[in-house]
Amino acid sequence: MTQKHNSYFSGSNDVISTEPLLNSKKVYVNGKLFKDIKVPFREISLSNGEKLCVYDTSGVYTDENVSIDVTRGIKSIRKDWIEKRGDVESYEGRVVKPKDDGYNSQEQLKFATAGSTNLYRTPLRAKEGKNVTQLHYARAGIITPEMEFVAIRENQNLAMTKKYLNDSKRENRLKGENFGANLPQEITPEFVRQEIAEGRAVLPCNINHPEVEPMIIGRNFLVKVNANIGNSATTSSIQEEVEKMVWATRWGADTVMDLSTGKNIHTTRDWILRNSPVPIGTVPIYQALEKVGGVAEDLTWELFRDTLIEQAEQGVDYFTIHAGLLKEHIALTHNRVTGIVSRGGSIMAKWMMHHNEENFLNTHFEEICEIMKSYDITFSLGDGLRPGSTADANDEAQFAELKELGRLTKIAWKHDIQTLIEGPGHVPMHLIKENMEKQLEWCDEAPFYTLGPLVTDIAPGYDHITSGIGAAMIGWYGCAMLCYVTPKEHLGLPNKEDVRVGLITYKLAAHAADIAKGHPGARARDDAMSLARFEFRWEDQFSISLDPDRALEYHDETMPMSSAKKAEFCSMCGPKFCSMKISQEVRDYANEKKGDN
Amino acid sequence: MTQKHNSYFSGSNDVISTEPLLNSKKVYVNGKLFKDIKVPFREISLSNGEKLCVYDTSGVYTDENVSIDVTRGIKSIRKDWIEKRGDVESYEGRVVKPKDDGYNSQEQLKFATAGSTNLYRTPLRAKEGKNVTQLHYARAGIITPEMEFVAIRENQNLAMTKKYLNDSKRENRLKGENFGANLPQEITPEFVRQEIAEGRAVLPCNINHPEVEPMIIGRNFLVKVNANIGNSATTSSIQEEVEKMVWATRWGADTVMDLSTGKNIHTTRDWILRNSPVPIGTVPIYQALEKVGGVAEDLTWELFRDTLIEQAEQGVDYFTIHAGLLKEHIALTHNRVTGIVSRGGSIMAKWMMHHNEENFLNTHFEEICEIMKSYDITFSLGDGLRPGSTADANDEAQFAELKELGRLTKIAWKHDIQTLIEGPGHVPMHLIKENMEKQLEWCDEAPFYTLGPLVTDIAPGYDHITSGIGAAMIGWYGCAMLCYVTPKEHLGLPNKEDVRVGLITYKLAAHAADIAKGHPGARARDDAMSLARFEFRWEDQFSISLDPDRALEYHDETMPMSSAKKAEFCSMCGPKFCSMKISQEVRDYANEKKGDN
Repeated sequence: MTQKHNSYFSGSNDVISTEPLLNSKKVYVNGKLFKDIKVPFREISLSNGEKLCVYDTSGVYTDENVSIDVTRGIKSIRKDWIEKRGDVESYEGRVVKPKDDGYNSQEQLKFATAGSTNLYRTPLRAKEGKNVTQLHYARAGIITPEMEFVAIRENQNLAMTKKYLNDSKRENRLKGENFGANLPQEITPEFVRQEIAEGRAVLPCNINHPEVEPMIIGRNFLVKVNANIGNSATTSSIQEEVEKMVWATRWGADTVMDLSTGKNIHTTRDWILRNSPVPIGTVPIYQALEKVGGVAEDLTWELFRDTLIEQAEQGVDYFTIHAGLLKEHIALTHNRVTGIVSRGGSIMAKWMMHHNEENFLNTHFEEICEIMKSYDITFSLGDGLRPGSTADANDEAQFAELKELGRLTKIAWKHDIQTLIEGPGHVPMHLIKENMEKQLEWCDEAPFYTLGPLVTDIAPGYDHITSGIGAAMIGWYGCAMLCYVTPKEHLGLPNKEDVRVGLITYKLAAHAADIAKGHPGARARDDAMSLARFEFRWEDQFSISLDPDRALEYHDETMPMSSAKKAEFCSMCGPKFCSMKISQEVRDYANEKKGDN
Repeated sequence: MTQKHNSYFSGSNDVISTEPLLNSKKVYVNGKLFKDIKVPFREISLSNGEKLCVYDTSGVYTDENVSIDVTRGIKSIRKDWIEKRGDVESYEGRVVKPKDDGYNSQEQLKFATAGSTNLYRTPLRAKEGKNVTQLHYARAGIITPEMEFVAIRENQNLAMTKKYLNDSKRENRLKGENFGANLPQEITPEFVRQEIAEGRAVLPCNINHPEVEPMIIGRNFLVKVNANIGNSATTSSIQEEVEKMVWATRWGADTVMDLSTGKNIHTTRDWILRNSPVPIGTVPIYQALEKVGGVAEDLTWELFRDTLIEQAEQGVDYFTIHAGLLKEHIALTHNRVTGIVSRGGSIMAKWMMHHNEENFLNTHFEEICEIMKSYDITFSLGDGLRPGSTADANDEAQFAELKELGRLTKIAWKHDIQTLIEGPGHVPMHLIKENMEKQLEWCDEAPFYTLGPLVTDIAPGYDHITSGIGAAMIGWYGCAMLCYVTPKEHLGLPNKEDVRVGLITYKLAAHAADIAKGHPGARARDDAMSLARFEFRWEDQFSISLDPDRALEYHDETMPMSSAKKAEFCSMCGPKFCSMKISQEVRDYANEKKGDN
């Protein structure tokens, strides 16, 4: 019954998904400040000759000119940028122990890691006295290549948006409501620098993850989506583990959290990192717990610290650290309907109760900071007390922890460490805004990163939707990143189809938020779709879609003939009842009449 | 290519779905004012001995004590109530013509209607000078059996909600934000009467549809969901057409719109109405257009009037009438991205352009009222100019029509006719609230009934979700009924699975709105679910779900063994990482410590 409990992705698949999406190809835009920057976009060719360039998280896997060898990893595009700054040094690094992968002997470990030797890299760290975080550079007034990269990346379709809007009344209606956010007309490298310097945005990029294509998380940028993956305890091959990450980024994951537990988690992490174009996050306490055989009481600061170093050297870009949950908070959960539902939170609560001591993640917080800044790892301060039911939303326990997260944010910032704040969970619609407002206030506008929230508890099997509703709303209110939820939430392990559905749901929620906030360029894609609809360009409707394959598949279920893709009506209404067709006839009438006068 | 264009439900199925949902049975609550009232609920038996009663739209089809014969129809529960009022008379009625079913001769018609002779009923109408609408009774201070029925129906789980809340701080947090709605602590028959009298709610129930189980639509009641169905042009049997309606109500459709076009639509409507426990709506202009061979210009008031009488006698409960679209509005759509996307709207626009005359639905509006009040048919004033893209949301065209709908509402109310207002459509999140506010203001709080709205245009294949987001939000803001959207929207015909997914999506959106508004009793189901989660009552989690079959299926994909349904953990995290389990251990610690003191 437990053999598969560590997998976040059921079903085996040894193929890496590499083909570009329908009518799309990878294009790159060069930097101006830094000539060697190549920012990737997905260029969609429309049948009317237009090109629509959209944000592309899928990395080189959808670039037909790049051949993939997952046993060697993808290109380290940031290597030169990191080295040129002159503030890092390579060093021998920590020796990998059998325990890191859940084994007791070197023999077992060798067996587990066979075939992945080409993925080992000598680690880098900050030179003595140096701080290598993007926040440190930003505060020093330095625009890094990473910053220019994200500036270019966030500026999609500005010209096309302008062209489509072409009407001042429409432009005014559609300009959005952004709750005090500071959305610029165009995103410049300097704007990126300022946002990072103010702590309002993070650019997660461990110096040991040079493969990453820089991306930014903050309320004045496009709303981002995270997908969780994890190892399979029963089977494991490099291909299979890498494919989970590739599959997630194919459907739009901006970051991926590797929540592996059980055996081979160190090795799996190497596989994922060396092949990942997106930032990778982890919850290090999970691995630490494995190392003590699942007995929370046996956790120690020393063991946890060693695990941080281990993962830092591999290149993990952000760590979820449940440092905000204090001993005094535990009593606040006793009257809850669903107690503590965060795994990290419950582990730390158990540890504190047993030892009758304060959370060691909190008491050692500044020591954690020392590690984070040596590698530029971003904090994702965990919400161990997030509500696990709408009944527990916005309660004292949740908000007491959020206040403490605000205090820790200031400490992290003192060390120039980039910081995200994690949020709920299960929240009825009328209580969502309060979450965002309190977070902005107490955490000084550090980017918020929420799981949903789910707006009702009664729809297992459809929790991607109950949470997608909350996610769209909180994204609109200012949440910077949304952690996806799949249809299997509360029920079982997601398969590939669940991951795809979860991601598309979250991409549409994030996009709806971008539109409602009025992000520059965001709505060009909607307008391109609407024009394609009105002009019966069926093929374009599929390629502009967030999920072109699904759109095509559904269309072809009722009208598979290729002629149907040129038809001036569709299967829903048929030719007599096609409003779009009649609407065009009405315009023709009007034009004829004009001609008569 | 067009042979199936009239079907809203692809795939054939001759079985009527009758089995009750998991661990559930039909129970009835008797009236107090009217002893013969039997209000249906779905009673869910939980493994801890509790019973959870939930609102049940599925009619006698899920009552194991009732045998179904769709060739004869279900019981006419309102027959006596209608007759006792003494204001109706039976009459011979209009003679059914071959054209009603799309045929040219009696021979063809006989062939089409074979087997359905037992479904014909002699029609009723108001006696000379009488008005038989629920609004008329309500204004006269009369509480009808229908009103007591819905009062009982809306009062679910008041005691259980109170028990679960058991904490004043929690109660205060969860009381909701209702934007000036007037939600009572308990819904009484007198409250129902007042809401109907004020025009804030409608109780759609044609006197020729005595089979209907009364339900109410208004912002101070539970948010309702409509599902669209339609005939299949290629195949048709009574079973198949009835099953579409039964299937929709099984998954929660509060009303069903029969949008059939093409052949056999009169006969199909008989089949549906005689077997439907929920109100049936139609768009009569669709049938009128069929009668003139699809040539909009050939439509006449006389033909349309005859079609209204035809459908009124059959028992249609509400009519969508596109009377608000005026000739002067058409020019306002010329600069739109997607023109006119309502079928009814585009048909009327074409008619007006061709004849250079005002919309005959508008000029003959009072004559339409005369028909509506003779049968108690509810107006659903159609939004012919709803936006078909987020780009066109809240534009001049849309709001000009909405204003006219407000004027027409006052005329309808002058005749004591119950009235709903239809709304969009495609609307970005930041423009949703304005729709609700203007509708409440201009239409004097007549119930709003929207299609979604979709909050982004770029997710075909997932439009149940893009629209479910908007639906949840506008439901919270005060929208009374949500017209569902299936995953096939914009792409093709929904199959049974699409209908189910569309409905569950809308039920969860409506429920999320009920919770956010603070409807009395609504959140007991969420709390029952959360308690079942915390106590590892897996079977209860499935039965409390909106879709128990799906929840069970997903759970069993990874943990099919029956022992897993008693396990104190699940496949997602396994025993070591189960936060709920650890959380309970933490409580045990705390309780032990208390014992020590």
